[in-house]
Amino acid sequence: MIDLYYAPTPNGWKVAIMLEECGLPYQARFLDIFHGAQLTPGFLAISPNAKMPAIVDRGGNGGAIPVFESGAILWYLAEKTGRFMSHDPIARKETMEWLFWQTGNQGPMAGQLAHFRMFGPTGGQDYALKRYRGEYERSLAVLERRLRQDEFIVGSYSIADMLAFPWAFIAKNLDVSLEPFPEVKRWRETIKARPAVQRAIALMKDRQNKGEHNSGNNTTLYNQSARHLLDIS
Amino acid sequence: MIDLYYAPTPNGWKVAIMLEECGLPYQARFLDIFHGAQLTPGFLAISPNAKMPAIVDRGGNGGAIPVFESGAILWYLAEKTGRFMSHDPIARKETMEWLFWQTGNQGPMAGQLAHFRMFGPTGGQDYALKRYRGEYERSLAVLERRLRQDEFIVGSYSIADMLAFPWAFIAKNLDVSLEPFPEVKRWRETIKARPAVQRAIALMKDRQNKGEHNSGNNTTLYNQSARHLLDIS
Repeated sequence: MIDLYYAPTPNGWKVAIMLEECGLPYQARFLDIFHGAQLTPGFLAISPNAKMPAIVDRGGNGGAIPVFESGAILWYLAEKTGRFMSHDPIARKETMEWLFWQTGNQGPMAGQLAHFRMFGPTGGQDYALKRYRGEYERSLAVLERRLRQDEFIVGSYSIADMLAFPWAFIAKNLDVSLEPFPEVKRWRETIKARPAVQRAIALMKDRQNKGEHNSGNNTTLYNQSARHLLDIS
Repeated sequence: MIDLYYAPTPNGWKVAIMLEECGLPYQARFLDIFHGAQLTPGFLAISPNAKMPAIVDRGGNGGAIPVFESGAILWYLAEKTGRFMSHDPIARKETMEWLFWQTGNQGPMAGQLAHFRMFGPTGGQDYALKRYRGEYERSLAVLERRLRQDEFIVGSYSIADMLAFPWAFIAKNLDVSLEPFPEVKRWRETIKARPAVQRAIALMKDRQNKGEHNSGNNTTLYNQSARHLLDIS
């Protein structure tokens, strides 16, 4: 059994998709990030970065194994199951490249755009909004060029696709059209149609934040500093 | 022989440090990112994300092997050499967690702070500056808590340290004091003193950008969009 610490956001979906695709038994535990559940000593022992998603694999040989960071979690689950990551050395190298690409580029840039659009102050943020829209669209262009070569990011459907799909799935919510990116659009539809993906996205949909929190009224999530963490023993 | 496509920035240092630590023969090729060298078809075939660092390993079994994304490059070099990443499954999992942590959190957040401090518009960016200072300091707090447990991030000195060191090394340039983070300070000094690290940081120091570029006068680097990439065949 795997415990999945989860909130229904793109980063949460990544792990739910992989668990559903593998048919691994798991229990989704809602992590109320809007009210500081990520800052408890118990959760920090699992996820020292104080973020979801995180898992605890209770079926590991060495007892309970916690894993944090979506890229590491998908890599861990691929290694555990032998699925959704090629065993060919070159394809493995390419998978790693695109895992790091997603978590270091598409993810954080889409995340900044989402922050300034939905949670940041209203007004006065034109530069940041333009910057992050451009960076997000640039990431879609990188994906577009890649998907001109093949149906999926690395040969067949893999953890690289599962990691990149959620942040392309929500393009419309970020007011970004996929029309200039026909290959991304085609790939997004293909993945979206998978039953495992549908189940992952439906998980705890009722818990979704609808933008009622913003940087003014939520200082736990949006005005992060060192202090929050250093004071926890 | 390994070709290293390089500019003397924290992300560039990561790879130079690993190459120096391993004593691998390499040739550093300056990539003039301020004048669009990253947007040529030749470089995009190596690094489809149009960023440095990237390597081409000309000693691979399957001919020349290109690798992009600093996290993937350090993982590739650790696998190639069998060095600086433990063979123990749990330590390997922890190494992966901290590689993804660095590239998805400390790196991009420090990068945004650097952007708004040094390259963004002057004035009117108080919210973004506060946000990214807080996020960067938060990342240092995550590292601080981790380094209370051990001398290095995962047991002995590893690629996880090499990835996280450069963005802690430049804290002063980002006007962030390490005084609240004594363990990070201790760890930073230990790594900084290593001869391989000294050599990596000295590499092409004369090519360093001193902030003479900003978002107004450099539209290749700072006003990214999809167009730049989609138009390149």
